[in-house]
Amino acid sequence: MPIGVFDSGYGGLSVLREMQRVLPDKDFIYLGDSGRAPYGGRDLATILDFAEQCTELLFAEGCKVVVVACHTVSCVALRHLQHRYANDERRVLGVTVPAAENAVAVARGRIGFLGTRRTVGSHTFRTEVAKLDATAEVKEVAAPLLAPIVEEGWECGEIARLAVQQYVEQLGEVDTLVLGCTHYPLLKAVFEEVLPDGVNLLDPAPFVAGRFMDWLMRHPSFSESAGSGLVRVLSSGDTARFAVNAERFLGKVPSVVEFVSERGGRLVFSAEGSEPTGQFLR
Amino acid sequence: MPIGVFDSGYGGLSVLREMQRVLPDKDFIYLGDSGRAPYGGRDLATILDFAEQCTELLFAEGCKVVVVACHTVSCVALRHLQHRYANDERRVLGVTVPAAENAVAVARGRIGFLGTRRTVGSHTFRTEVAKLDATAEVKEVAAPLLAPIVEEGWECGEIARLAVQQYVEQLGEVDTLVLGCTHYPLLKAVFEEVLPDGVNLLDPAPFVAGRFMDWLMRHPSFSESAGSGLVRVLSSGDTARFAVNAERFLGKVPSVVEFVSERGGRLVFSAEGSEPTGQFLR
Repeated sequence: MPIGVFDSGYGGLSVLREMQRVLPDKDFIYLGDSGRAPYGGRDLATILDFAEQCTELLFAEGCKVVVVACHTVSCVALRHLQHRYANDERRVLGVTVPAAENAVAVARGRIGFLGTRRTVGSHTFRTEVAKLDATAEVKEVAAPLLAPIVEEGWECGEIARLAVQQYVEQLGEVDTLVLGCTHYPLLKAVFEEVLPDGVNLLDPAPFVAGRFMDWLMRHPSFSESAGSGLVRVLSSGDTARFAVNAERFLGKVPSVVEFVSERGGRLVFSAEGSEPTGQFLR
Repeated sequence: MPIGVFDSGYGGLSVLREMQRVLPDKDFIYLGDSGRAPYGGRDLATILDFAEQCTELLFAEGCKVVVVACHTVSCVALRHLQHRYANDERRVLGVTVPAAENAVAVARGRIGFLGTRRTVGSHTFRTEVAKLDATAEVKEVAAPLLAPIVEEGWECGEIARLAVQQYVEQLGEVDTLVLGCTHYPLLKAVFEEVLPDGVNLLDPAPFVAGRFMDWLMRHPSFSESAGSGLVRVLSSGDTARFAVNAERFLGKVPSVVEFVSERGGRLVFSAEGSEPTGQFLR
């Protein structure tokens, strides 16, 4: 009974890492839909389609609980997924509510939040914060270039610093900054350099993992078997590139990355051959 | 009998602009598949699916000739599209062969080429150059961050300069640099600043447009009616954002951007309502 985790790409592996830290004996299946990433600029109907496909695939592979590590999907589609799939035997959990809880717990009233265009456009984070603390001010800013910078592996250079600086300036004065996209924790050092002293920099992943452990304890029927700490990694993108990038997020190279292909708009398991150069005929 | 032009996003509008310049009386339909952009990192089967859908949609809207403005699609899928759709009444044309012709005409033996990961991985540009000049050296480098920088509208700042610099350094010594992605012409000023004196900077769009005019004259059955210089613009992304961005590529705001939505992996015309904030249920 592995635990399913999915994200639009590599980023959610940073959430998986925290989950493994608190639940070292559990088995996981991670699906990175990197062939169709980023989700952040796609239309809502498409994001819902993709989120359904990822969820269905993880349930089909034997998961009973699916954790939506992607903030974009969590913000716009979590309720839809829960409404459609959750029952006594299957659950879908997200990251937005834990992120809001975490922010309210550490902030002193002025919370900044960076995410994709779609995440920010949903205002779901702000809504969740308001439920917990109606007096907290939340400033949400879309930072669409940060994920591509991390995907390119340029999180240490001057480009990353300038981009982070531009987005941080748009936030104005905040006492806490929430990294509302699973790519951003790789830019932590840059954020620490750019942010004024005294601003809390918040990667919600450890709190999300703690909340999940807590949830499992309260729902023992989803936590029967101990497992053996295995992780299966699936990706809809270039699996070799995924394995290399996975190391930066997960802290280790996954032993194998299985390929899930998109055919006619649906995810299906595929054998990945070497791809031809030149014109591609079929 | 409008002429169809498509690209994965806004970029191809810079090709359309050049086509309008040489064919001011023709009518055009431009499809920007920006809801699913960028194509450059997608798997080959997906790019073929998307390319088929764009081509079919433009034929369905009455076009007899479809110009693939996207270098990624041109490099990997043009032959497939021609094989599948081209006949005495319908044609599909690309940008890679004209770009190679243009490069060979102006270069002094050392050609650099920047494009998406998929474009560069296909080596189609290099193959086409070799057919024209077997002695020319071609260095192809993938520049996956440049399109996102342009999409963000940051083509004038320090971030753009640093990114261009990094990619140009990877090229080594060249006498001509081909901009092998329709986004890159917006970074022309940055390239001119970064490139050493004497390097030709080549945006293939004017040559592509000239070649197309030439082709039309040699194929009069595809050029019957004069038209009235109208352009219909279709987009699968956020149409309001598309209109704003279109101005930067096309040099003017399109009067209306029609919405084409992705449903079940297929492009279909849709009415675009205002999108809800918060969780999205269906």
